[in-house]
Amino acid sequence: MPVRIVIPIFDGVTALDAVGPYEVLRMLPEAEVVFAAEAAGPCADGDGSLSLVASAALTDVARADVLLVPGGPGARRRVTDEPLLAWIRRIHATTRWTTSVCTGSLLLGAAGLLDGLEATTHWSAVGQLESYGATYTARRVVEQPGGVVTAAGVSSGIDMALRLAELIAGRTVAEACQLAIEYDPQPPFDSGAYAKASPEVKEYLAARR
Amino acid sequence: MPVRIVIPIFDGVTALDAVGPYEVLRMLPEAEVVFAAEAAGPCADGDGSLSLVASAALTDVARADVLLVPGGPGARRRVTDEPLLAWIRRIHATTRWTTSVCTGSLLLGAAGLLDGLEATTHWSAVGQLESYGATYTARRVVEQPGGVVTAAGVSSGIDMALRLAELIAGRTVAEACQLAIEYDPQPPFDSGAYAKASPEVKEYLAARR
Repeated sequence: MPVRIVIPIFDGVTALDAVGPYEVLRMLPEAEVVFAAEAAGPCADGDGSLSLVASAALTDVARADVLLVPGGPGARRRVTDEPLLAWIRRIHATTRWTTSVCTGSLLLGAAGLLDGLEATTHWSAVGQLESYGATYTARRVVEQPGGVVTAAGVSSGIDMALRLAELIAGRTVAEACQLAIEYDPQPPFDSGAYAKASPEVKEYLAARR
Repeated sequence: MPVRIVIPIFDGVTALDAVGPYEVLRMLPEAEVVFAAEAAGPCADGDGSLSLVASAALTDVARADVLLVPGGPGARRRVTDEPLLAWIRRIHATTRWTTSVCTGSLLLGAAGLLDGLEATTHWSAVGQLESYGATYTARRVVEQPGGVVTAAGVSSGIDMALRLAELIAGRTVAEACQLAIEYDPQPPFDSGAYAKASPEVKEYLAARR
């Protein structure tokens, strides 16, 4: 049975939020992936050095098995974009899995989909996430009843996608996706979670904001 | 001092090979990232569901501090693309770091840059890598004299980029890049390296080729 994965993108998206899980989910048997934006065409990422191309307009998309909402500075700016939020609610009503990566969770929250649920987001967006009625949970991937799954910052979308792959297509297929992208991570340092990072690292990032 | 990072892309690129390290390296102080292709404009990835946009033509690029060559089915097809190989050699002569992710190493190899060196690649491309005079090393990131650094399949480019960030800008900055993308990987299974995957997983992937 085909699996239709819809990934909305926008100017200011963080490319890895979308591309990490895409590389896993596109390998599912009979996967069909649609990148959709306000209008079909290129969307510049938050840095401005890269554009991803949407092949469809949001209004061309009527349903999804998996809705995957990426984050980025553009997601933060769109939490009051009512047409986008209405589209998210409309597609959510058709999905088996409604998911986010990083600050994509703020769009799910602003659309009213996280009220009363546990959820996660990028470590820098916890307060805003909770303003939508969600309870922040410092886990990398948070699964909730109703098929709502949120992932923490940026790279965590890969871990979430592998879990979704298992839920959708079973363990062997999911492990095959992991091997295909050779995801045997060996980060050279252990500074990838807020609780693990040094004061110097946090000061450096704070000064860059 | 600015750090100029050049990422050549092409039809058939694996998007994550490029986007994973991009999200790390673009955060280096004074980073300037250029995605370049035969002609400026969109390049369809190997799956065909996503295009990345090159902002420059290869011929517009004269030098790089970091050359990062991604892989994908399009890389395998381009190992006899003499203009591309000549461009890689020309840019390599200007770099401090010449690097590859996944089967991007085949392009470095075909360009003659890996002869006599240790290198790595996607697990499915070992024989071809060695045909260029490289000695395959089953490590995730392989650093060689002369600033040649190769990474294993797809997702390994993130680990490589964090190591490059440390070499270029020091440990605190590199750890800040790791925290910014919340790279605290927690894969739900342990099937990300060929030596770890089950016979069923290998059979499944072999049948899909």
